[in-house]
Amino acid sequence: MKEEKKISSAVIKRLPKYYRYLLILQQMGISRVSSNDLSKTMEITSSQVRQDFFNFGGFGLQGYGYDVSLLVKEIGKILGMDVTHNMIVIGAGNLGQAIANHASFEKRGFKIAGIFDNNPRHVGDVVRGIEIMHIDRLTEFMSQHPADIAIITVPREYARDVVDKAIRLGIKGIWNFASVELDVPEDVAVENIHLSESLMALTYKMKEKRESKAAKAKTQA
Amino acid sequence: MKEEKKISSAVIKRLPKYYRYLLILQQMGISRVSSNDLSKTMEITSSQVRQDFFNFGGFGLQGYGYDVSLLVKEIGKILGMDVTHNMIVIGAGNLGQAIANHASFEKRGFKIAGIFDNNPRHVGDVVRGIEIMHIDRLTEFMSQHPADIAIITVPREYARDVVDKAIRLGIKGIWNFASVELDVPEDVAVENIHLSESLMALTYKMKEKRESKAAKAKTQA
Repeated sequence: MKEEKKISSAVIKRLPKYYRYLLILQQMGISRVSSNDLSKTMEITSSQVRQDFFNFGGFGLQGYGYDVSLLVKEIGKILGMDVTHNMIVIGAGNLGQAIANHASFEKRGFKIAGIFDNNPRHVGDVVRGIEIMHIDRLTEFMSQHPADIAIITVPREYARDVVDKAIRLGIKGIWNFASVELDVPEDVAVENIHLSESLMALTYKMKEKRESKAAKAKTQA
Repeated sequence: MKEEKKISSAVIKRLPKYYRYLLILQQMGISRVSSNDLSKTMEITSSQVRQDFFNFGGFGLQGYGYDVSLLVKEIGKILGMDVTHNMIVIGAGNLGQAIANHASFEKRGFKIAGIFDNNPRHVGDVVRGIEIMHIDRLTEFMSQHPADIAIITVPREYARDVVDKAIRLGIKGIWNFASVELDVPEDVAVENIHLSESLMALTYKMKEKRESKAAKAKTQA
């Protein structure tokens, strides 16, 4: 366990991506993969791949490629994917329903246990076989079906209140789509999805492409 | 322009986050901000903030704080936010409608021009005043309302086809929610949203919290 602690934050950021690619390889029935092949999809150097896997310790012999199943298992363990996570969705609008519908989560050990909203228009609707409940029933629900992750897809003005409530009821991980900064106790983890940041990253890349095209045209002129 | 090129990719990744915080400050009527205050929300050191802004060149005098409006303007320019982007949404399911509904985009110069789907069930519905059109009308639409960004919210099996079509019609930026790798021409930018990677980052953080709590309990025992 001490060894795991030493993994740098840069490597940690790459782990979910490794895991995602390795799952695809596994589904395709590919049992071994070279650092070179992984480096192309990961957009890093193959020596970086080797160094990453060396840090976790003994994932394969260089030259023979890495054992895909072993990597999936070990990286999955580091990522906390070896336990099943029960999730509740708070906010059953389009985004909440889209996330609840995201079939691939379940294959990876994430289970949607309940969906909640305060809007009577949504309550009673069924998403993936789960009836949307009124948020007032959250306390009762959590006492019977303890969940560990809350997906926050409410409008930002409600986010802090529902997060506080969820944490009081035992939630340990907040997947936050509400574009608002959250203050949580030390033992609660938060992961934010900031759609606007991603969109800005796109326009930055587009600007780069425009400028490099213009520069090229100028050189050729 | 040459100067901008030198901005490292690590800084580039921080720019959308800076921009988001600075917009919030601007909305709150705050005109100056210190590197120290920014560093807290950015979760980096204040000297890193100073170095980042120094790299862009002259955003304020250290000690007097930075001019928020100037930063918004200059970082906005670097991010390609000084031009209005017209976007089309391809895939009008829950996720597509959720993205189209995301009001904050428009304030930042992103305009949803059209929404498309191949499912007759969605066609004719209205989202934010825009009627969902059948995907067969995309060519006609783009000839009359050229857009530069396509938001891809179709199921993954359709993604590559609609992306190819959108690019043939002049789209230069792909915001991809379809969890599938895309091959695009050199002058087209792609930004992927991998929800599953974000969720795994959350479970990793949760595991870290559990382990550090357990370690603490052990020390105290």
